[in-house]
Amino acid sequence: MPSIQSIPGSVCAPQGFRAAGVAARIKPSGNPDVALIVSEQPAAATAVFTTNRVCAAPVIVSREHLRAGTARAIAVNAGNANACTGEQGLADARRMAAITAELVGCAPAEVVVASTGVIGHMLPMDRVEAGLRQAVAELSAAGDSQAAQAIMTTDTRPKEAAVEVEIDGKQIRIGGMCKGSGMIAPNMATMLAFITTDAEVWPEALDAALRAATARTFNCVTVDGDCSTNDTLAILANGAAGVRVPPASPAYAAFSEGLLDVCTRLAKELARDGEGATKLVEVHVSGARSVSQALQVARSIANSPLVKTALFGNDPNWGRILCAAGYSGAALDPARLALTLCGAPLVRKGEPVAFDAAAVSQAMRAPEVRIDVDLGLGRSEASVWTCDFSYDYVRINAEYTT
Amino acid sequence: MPSIQSIPGSVCAPQGFRAAGVAARIKPSGNPDVALIVSEQPAAATAVFTTNRVCAAPVIVSREHLRAGTARAIAVNAGNANACTGEQGLADARRMAAITAELVGCAPAEVVVASTGVIGHMLPMDRVEAGLRQAVAELSAAGDSQAAQAIMTTDTRPKEAAVEVEIDGKQIRIGGMCKGSGMIAPNMATMLAFITTDAEVWPEALDAALRAATARTFNCVTVDGDCSTNDTLAILANGAAGVRVPPASPAYAAFSEGLLDVCTRLAKELARDGEGATKLVEVHVSGARSVSQALQVARSIANSPLVKTALFGNDPNWGRILCAAGYSGAALDPARLALTLCGAPLVRKGEPVAFDAAAVSQAMRAPEVRIDVDLGLGRSEASVWTCDFSYDYVRINAEYTT
Repeated sequence: MPSIQSIPGSVCAPQGFRAAGVAARIKPSGNPDVALIVSEQPAAATAVFTTNRVCAAPVIVSREHLRAGTARAIAVNAGNANACTGEQGLADARRMAAITAELVGCAPAEVVVASTGVIGHMLPMDRVEAGLRQAVAELSAAGDSQAAQAIMTTDTRPKEAAVEVEIDGKQIRIGGMCKGSGMIAPNMATMLAFITTDAEVWPEALDAALRAATARTFNCVTVDGDCSTNDTLAILANGAAGVRVPPASPAYAAFSEGLLDVCTRLAKELARDGEGATKLVEVHVSGARSVSQALQVARSIANSPLVKTALFGNDPNWGRILCAAGYSGAALDPARLALTLCGAPLVRKGEPVAFDAAAVSQAMRAPEVRIDVDLGLGRSEASVWTCDFSYDYVRINAEYTT
Repeated sequence: MPSIQSIPGSVCAPQGFRAAGVAARIKPSGNPDVALIVSEQPAAATAVFTTNRVCAAPVIVSREHLRAGTARAIAVNAGNANACTGEQGLADARRMAAITAELVGCAPAEVVVASTGVIGHMLPMDRVEAGLRQAVAELSAAGDSQAAQAIMTTDTRPKEAAVEVEIDGKQIRIGGMCKGSGMIAPNMATMLAFITTDAEVWPEALDAALRAATARTFNCVTVDGDCSTNDTLAILANGAAGVRVPPASPAYAAFSEGLLDVCTRLAKELARDGEGATKLVEVHVSGARSVSQALQVARSIANSPLVKTALFGNDPNWGRILCAAGYSGAALDPARLALTLCGAPLVRKGEPVAFDAAAVSQAMRAPEVRIDVDLGLGRSEASVWTCDFSYDYVRINAEYTT
């Protein structure tokens, strides 16, 4: 096992990265809403994007820009998603990259752009430009927490994680930040996540490591089943630590473990801070015929409004959990099902087990709740993270206005 | 076009049917919870059931019983779903049919049984039996409204519809009742629906007519995307009106139209009375390459918690609607999309149209709201009915306890 140490900070934890977050009056609240992350030297770069066919302009532009596999900067705004904005939106996303490129001294194609917020409104480009100018002026190696603040929308707190990994006797670092917190569904949600590392990783290997980590982390998070127009997870590897990570090497394995660790922590934070969430819920499905069937069942349970409201009400209403498993479409034999909630066995071989409902309800009040479903059909397993469904989810989304 | 007249009542509107609804203390509230519908003579019968692999015991039993295509009675309890109850549950469902058969004087296989309510608790058979005895004693040709009350769970009102159809110069009648109101999703939800007719229709033709009507009505309703363990829609045709409806005849077409009318009204009532609903929402998708793709987009929109909370908040946040269309998986070109909300065009050729947000928000306060999405790709269309997502949905489902 590689040595992986959790360290403070996020995208500025690796060497050679600076960041800033400023308030540019794009959010009506006046909170910080423009973030910039810059690598001092050109970095290998890759990203995974939303699978939504209605994707935002910055997703289209960033996908183009990352074709060469390198980048210098990530420019982000919150408060406006620049989605469903047609040709003008596309021009604005390109302009956001061009302005950033001029300010940091690189090619526009070396800039990743991302936006999050309300859909269908044109970006206020004068504010975006002023924000980017200010952000460049404020760039610092301690600016990551400001940047993490600036990418938030309905998140209640910034989400950051970083690790130090020992490779060949040297240290490399990986740091990341992300934001939720509605429209969170498998296959990349409304989520924006930005990761940096000072390891030297070729674009193809970086891409493979990122996709592998995403499949086991961000794609296993669901808040409301809505897969957004803007989801972007980008990573920059600038090599500043002087450590090479060749494909298929022990170094690559160690790097991948470190990346998985950062992604896991960020993904769990996403679920924990889902809109209106009062608790983090892990749905673990075992005994499946394949990992994808385990995921199918876990997602079906994690997305069920009836399961999520019962979790909010601390109600061990396990019938809703089996019901959601039943309509998942995965292979399932009701007579083999076993269900454990907060460690208490509630169902065995498809039949209810007598249990202390008051005690389980009490256990459900914990900040982390675990649901274990054993399909009894095979050896594959998977976990999905979600949160409960509260009055506040409705309040936030009925009042978050256009 | 056949002459179809709306008439009062439901399952007792056709000749030769009696019904009753009684309180048997299965519901903790003490409200009526056992319903019985009896045909005076043997009737052709068929049903469609939940597609959930975790299906309730009465679904298994009724499916067996309906293999012969005839039935005399439908016995229903609310307050307990008899789902996830293993072998005991299955024995209880069979016993419920046997008790009913003995009381009404028919074979057990001529009884359709259905249950709705909380999952995973054993049926209190003594109360069920006492309820059935009382119901048989109270059977009357005016008992349908009592029966419609007795099948309710979280429904706020009974749901009944009936029509008179002229066939060959004579009148036949079709009447139905149903209950929701959570776990309502495409492919038969938590829903129970019972329909009677005094037309004489052979089982195969009755089945074909029922499946065709279901595809365009009950399967186009969604409240929360949860497809329940108990969904049952059964129809009995006793021929008491002395009118034969042969397959593929004009009489069959007229009968099918009448059945579609009853199912449409019941299905819309289901959506209108969805848990916590403040309005009925019709999502109409046109310009699709196929009806199934139109349905796919409409369901994706109708199931999105973000769309539904915006509808509750009277917020014309159309970006969420296009976002849900985008992740539906159906073929879609963002540049061709058009969106109309309450008659106001908001998006044309994928680009936002200037609109009076206050006026549209005001229009969204109506009891019925319509969303029209034109994909601009083909000629197929479909509608799905749903409701908004309110604080009350959370309250009802966090507090509806096991």
